Order: sequence, then structure tokens, then C-alpha cells
Amino acid sequence: MAPRPSYRDSKIPEMTIRRLSVYTRCLQQLEEDGVKTISSQDLAERFGLNSAQVRKDLAYFGEFGVRGIGYYVVGLKAELQRILGLDREWPIALVGFGNLGSALFHYKGFGRQGFRIAVIFDDDPLKIGRSADGVPIMGTRDMTRELRARGVQIAIVAVPVDGAQGVADQLVAAGVRAVLNFAPARLRVAREVRLKNVDLSIELETLSFYLAKDTR
Amino acid sequence: MAPRPSYRDSKIPEMTIRRLSVYTRCLQQLEEDGVKTISSQDLAERFGLNSAQVRKDLAYFGEFGVRGIGYYVVGLKAELQRILGLDREWPIALVGFGNLGSALFHYKGFGRQGFRIAVIFDDDPLKIGRSADGVPIMGTRDMTRELRARGVQIAIVAVPVDGAQGVADQLVAAGVRAVLNFAPARLRVAREVRLKNVDLSIELETLSFYLAKDTR
Repeated sequence: MAPRPSYRDSKIPEMTIRRLSVYTRCLQQLEEDGVKTISSQDLAERFGLNSAQVRKDLAYFGEFGVRGIGYYVVGLKAELQRILGLDREWPIALVGFGNLGSALFHYKGFGRQGFRIAVIFDDDPLKIGRSADGVPIMGTRDMTRELRARGVQIAIVAVPVDGAQGVADQLVAAGVRAVLNFAPARLRVAREVRLKNVDLSIELETLSFYLAKDTR
Repeated sequence: MAPRPSYRDSKIPEMTIRRLSVYTRCLQQLEEDGVKTISSQDLAERFGLNSAQVRKDLAYFGEFGVRGIGYYVVGLKAELQRILGLDREWPIALVGFGNLGSALFHYKGFGRQGFRIAVIFDDDPLKIGRSADGVPIMGTRDMTRELRARGVQIAIVAVPVDGAQGVADQLVAAGVRAVLNFAPARLRVAREVRLKNVDLSIELETLSFYLAKDTR
């Protein structure tokens, strides 16, 4: 069941990583339902997945199936969580506590996967010095010091488009290695920093594509 | 330059649709910069894309390149917008006007792509009957009637997990054909309805995957 050590160097498609997240949720559900083992076919059928895809995705990381049995639900879930880095806690900084920042702070999905927003930054004097559910809200001028002191490696950017690049620069300078950006701006970061842009309108466009196609 | 009519029936990967959105944004930028024509190589280089991928994605929809010239920026942008259904206005319903719903309502990215939230539904008596930037907030009990009257085909669901399936059922019954779901729930909808689940924690997991991999 040990993952091949070589996956560190191979080129794994991002869609595979995203699907690992989905598989982990499915296995969580199966565990809650008391299911001990499951075949890739049953896993696929039960959750509307593609069983060949499941096998191919998992094969990047090792041999997880057992002949005649399938996958051990709890064991595979733990392996996938470890691969996804969910076996440890990542303190996260949230920059920007406006409408979107506040919504992200309260988003239930993050906590469920072990992500914890540990500190919030904003430049509104009315917010600085307060806290949200016990999490301190600090001024962006204290950001570098606080990020370093807390060893924050992941940050969520939810500031208006004009301030986004400046914030990203500060984050990277303070040692942040991964940025999840919600600002509709093309950010430039050093090559070794992971940047993930979330553009919510792309989701709507995939929907309008299908509607337009159907009515054409 | 006319797209092949056959694409209606072919199996186009969702990632291709998502990339069309990205190409459209790049072409918009080029147009603003006064660029008239561009090769797939230059397009790729300038925006950090993969030129072979660009050509392959576009080939699903027709022959857009002109030998010795490349792509006409304005023409290709207009073609892609038409393919993505962005050449018309889709009135959108937003269901749930809490933290997340409110953030989505104010999200700048939607309007920029021609999406307009035309009506908001919530079951909080303090919100019903009011409006947000001129958009009416109505009770969910009036949802069916209002959706039909307004011909809404796309809805965004931003309600708590417990109410999400009930809302989805109501939407579909009222003729909505595409649902963008932000509630962390697995919704069941009729096969002909397009459902897109947005799970923001998956974005964080792709980041923690890479951080975990680098420190292993």
C-alpha cells in the first residue's frame, strides 16, 4: 500500500489532484456509512465517477487496490489525505475582510477539510484590532511580521483588484508559498510560489456554454 | 471562419470550455492593448498558455487561424463569446443572501462577462421586500412564480447545506436549466439540467498538495 516515492518528480495533472479531493470526500461518506471495502467500479457507480479514471488517478501514487477486495475505505482515505497534505494543519492567512473575505471566512467547507484561518488582515481602521470568531483582524502594515511569526505558508487574497499585486508581493516576501487569489487580477509571483486564481465567472460561462449550445 | 456545425454533438472536454473562457479574457486584453492579430505561439507566450493546447481547443469549434497571419483578435474574441453564450444576456437568480450570497452578488467578475443577477431570493423576513443595488429580494415562497415570469434559466445556489436540495427541486420545477451550486451538498437534479458544484476547499487542497509534496 506504500505510495511510490517517485511521484514527487512525475508530472501529475492538476485535474488528478482535484479528483483526489473528490475521492477523499466519497471515502469519507463511505466510512460514515460503515462501508469497509469497495471496488473501483462500486466507488464509481455510487458517486457518479469514472472507474477507469479512478484507477488511473490513483496509479500516480501507488498500488492501493487489493485483488479480490478492492480498496480499504479507511486506509485509502488516510493515504489520500496524506498525499493532499490534509494530515497536518496549515495555518492560513486571509487578506481582505470585505464581502468576499467575510464569506470565505465563514465558508463551512474549509474547516471540514482541516484548513483553519489563523489571522485576518484588512486596512479598514474600523476592523483592525477586532476579531472574528476569535481570529484576530490586523492591519496590512503588520502583515510581514505576523506572517513570519506565525509561520503562515498559505494565504487567501480577497482584496479589490487594485491592491492585489501589492498584497501578493508582501505575502511572498514574508515567506508565504501558496496563494489562493479571488481578486480578478493577473498576479505575478516568483516561480517557486504556487498561485491559484479562482475566477467564479468561469463557472457561469461553462453553464452558459451548454445552454447556448442547446438553443442554437 | 465559420465554426463547424458538428460541435454541437461532439464530446468537448469541460477543461476546453474553461480554457475558452481564459482565451476570451486574453483576447479582450489584447484588444484593449490595440493588438490586431496574434499567432497561437505569441498568444501562448504572452499569457503563459500552451500553444498546442490552444490550437487543439479551438479546433473543436472550427478553423479560426489564417495562414501567415494567425488569429484576428476581435474576430476570434467575438466567435468565442458567441460559443460561450456571452453574446446574449442571461438573467440570473441568486438564492440565499447570507454572507456568501451577498459576496457573490457584489462579485465584480460576473458583471464583466455579461452575467446579471436579476432577482434574489431569501427566507429572512428582514430581507424580503428590500432590494440590493436595485435588484429585488423576494421570499422563496414566490420563487416558482417569479422565475417563470422572468424566464430565468440560470440560478446560483448559496443557501445552507440543509436547504439546498429543496431549493434545487424548486428551481428545476420552475424551468431553470443550469444551477451553480455553492452549498457543500451533493444535489440531485434531472439529467437535462446542468449542475455545477463549486467546492472552494478543493482549491486549497491543490495548494496543500504541492506544499506537502515539497516538504516530504
